[in-house]
Amino acid sequence: MFAPVYFDHNASTPIDARVLAGMLPFMTDHFGNASSRHEYGRAARRAIDEARQRVAFAVGAHPTEIVFTSGGSEANNLFIKGVAANLPVGTVAISAIEHPCVREPAQQLTRAGWMLDEIGVNLSGQVLPADIQRRVTSTNWRPSIVSVMLANNETGAIQDVAAIAQSMKSCGALMHTDAVQAFGKMTIDFRALNSAGVHGMTLSAHKIGGPKGAGTLVLDKRTDLQAQIAGGGHERGLRSGTENVAAIVGFGLAAEIAVRELAARRAATLRLREALEIGLLREGAKIFSQTAERLPNTSYFAFENVDGETLVGKLDRAGFAVASGAACSSANPQASRVLLAMKVPAELARGAVRISFGADNTSAQVNDFLQALTATLAELRGLVAMAE
Amino acid sequence: MFAPVYFDHNASTPIDARVLAGMLPFMTDHFGNASSRHEYGRAARRAIDEARQRVAFAVGAHPTEIVFTSGGSEANNLFIKGVAANLPVGTVAISAIEHPCVREPAQQLTRAGWMLDEIGVNLSGQVLPADIQRRVTSTNWRPSIVSVMLANNETGAIQDVAAIAQSMKSCGALMHTDAVQAFGKMTIDFRALNSAGVHGMTLSAHKIGGPKGAGTLVLDKRTDLQAQIAGGGHERGLRSGTENVAAIVGFGLAAEIAVRELAARRAATLRLREALEIGLLREGAKIFSQTAERLPNTSYFAFENVDGETLVGKLDRAGFAVASGAACSSANPQASRVLLAMKVPAELARGAVRISFGADNTSAQVNDFLQALTATLAELRGLVAMAE
Repeated sequence: MFAPVYFDHNASTPIDARVLAGMLPFMTDHFGNASSRHEYGRAARRAIDEARQRVAFAVGAHPTEIVFTSGGSEANNLFIKGVAANLPVGTVAISAIEHPCVREPAQQLTRAGWMLDEIGVNLSGQVLPADIQRRVTSTNWRPSIVSVMLANNETGAIQDVAAIAQSMKSCGALMHTDAVQAFGKMTIDFRALNSAGVHGMTLSAHKIGGPKGAGTLVLDKRTDLQAQIAGGGHERGLRSGTENVAAIVGFGLAAEIAVRELAARRAATLRLREALEIGLLREGAKIFSQTAERLPNTSYFAFENVDGETLVGKLDRAGFAVASGAACSSANPQASRVLLAMKVPAELARGAVRISFGADNTSAQVNDFLQALTATLAELRGLVAMAE
Repeated sequence: MFAPVYFDHNASTPIDARVLAGMLPFMTDHFGNASSRHEYGRAARRAIDEARQRVAFAVGAHPTEIVFTSGGSEANNLFIKGVAANLPVGTVAISAIEHPCVREPAQQLTRAGWMLDEIGVNLSGQVLPADIQRRVTSTNWRPSIVSVMLANNETGAIQDVAAIAQSMKSCGALMHTDAVQAFGKMTIDFRALNSAGVHGMTLSAHKIGGPKGAGTLVLDKRTDLQAQIAGGGHERGLRSGTENVAAIVGFGLAAEIAVRELAARRAATLRLREALEIGLLREGAKIFSQTAERLPNTSYFAFENVDGETLVGKLDRAGFAVASGAACSSANPQASRVLLAMKVPAELARGAVRISFGADNTSAQVNDFLQALTATLAELRGLVAMAE
């Protein structure tokens, strides 16, 4: 296989070899349905129970708080629509920089009469708890469902979700955080978040060296939630469907490794990013959320008068896999909503390129990339100069 | 690993070695997010497109009619709640023998004011199209959503879904069929079903030698359906979330193999079942749906005064993995709803045991099983005799 350098770990990560090794027996010998009561079923059930413990312990939760889903999108939908189903019609509030799989289910609630409020961010892409506090105190703002992500997928900006939850506690809202991008890149303590007022938290396996096809909603058990996939009553009645045993096993292993190796990964990716950003700034890049507390692996930037799609396409052909705009959403030539919420001019936003490092990247790759970038920018800027 | 003889293929099947070989590259080298526009993403997208064609061609559908989901439960929920969201409140009608992942979403609709009607079955566990025709004509029955499964997971009884759809055509209902158990065990022609009036059909990978974690709703594109997992707009906006590429690839390969080897598998499993049932009848078994057209691999039976749980437990210890009651649902000591709908007395129903063969079973295994069964029954009946 032709293997370009992969700088897009926020979109998806390779499966860690240790994780895959742990999954394979559940794709060969241990193929039972975990609901079956014979030995094949019991072996699958034991493996799921063990994975549930691993995922819970990785984020400071209790195993009974883990609701396994097919991934992050499903978990976000499950919280938002699952709690709304058991609440009177009210207001759902989400930050302006949420992933579409939070925004769209919130949007769907408006069909049933719900109000959808956006929580703005500052120029660095962060929600300010003090702004929320003011809104609650002075305008009697009372959303009943709130979702603010722990770290943004594009900029990597980290949100102070505990402080946000504290500032809203008087609302009595059910609060959720999408921690898909934060997981594996910073310490997550669900117990602390829960004490601050967070009821649900979403995680995904394929962003942390695990397989696609597994995620979880970590859920305060006192939360009244309606299953969105109803049926055989799996996952304490909150998510039916035959468990994807191998993927869940892989999720458990990846979660354990992610926490064990967090400090080393942070240091390694941060070192790469610092080298990268020195080079980017030398080329005149604007780096988004540069002054905010950010995930260590993520750099999101643009160059004036350079189209992001074109740049990403040329870098791809030069052997570097990077993302333009939000990598998770499909072909969509519009400017990033996240950057527009940060008041980045639309033209600059359309130039946005994201690099997100993983454990497998090296500084030699960063050096090669910077060389390729310099050449590509010279070519593109030459074309612009010729056209002028 | 201690490997009991596996006779529970309706609960889940081993992954075919050819399928797993095709999946593995997508768990190692080709790990991209299919929404990414670099080479890793494009490779994933091409693989999904190819799998979409394989699944479509296996069931006489068009690739654009395939909506990939995480499995059968999700697909059933997606049809029932997805079409209901875009219809005025009305009546949803399901057969009395549907799987919980059809019955429960239909039940959820009643919370929004929908009426839930059951369609009864005869003593053989089959819905009679003539009964439905009469109900439509004489009582002005007008459900707007209907779901009748193509073959039952417990008895294996095959339903004449095309005739049922024809008999309801004047209702203008949106009609769905759960074909999870039928797929790979009988010929399925979505085009023919669609012409008869079926709009949606559910399939699952892990029942046909594919992996857990992939299924599909085959959907007539004129059907107005609301996504149940909303977000990035994957699957033509009908199912968001990063695609589980490896599982989808495995689903495609398994579907292709299932159709290519259907005749051979039918003949082989039917031969095993005939040998099994001769032995069962010799021991005095009542075989459910015996006179109905059934899936070739499935035998569902009970012995008077023999508890099913106890029998399954003893057979498990003797090295045979078989199912009691409905294997997909969790620990639930109640009599099978399917058998109660067939007017089987509750006590006999509680004795129900299911054997479902797969391509890997042999007649030597059946002979060994019958020997173990004879010994176990003698033991259990001896205990009963002693107690009397």
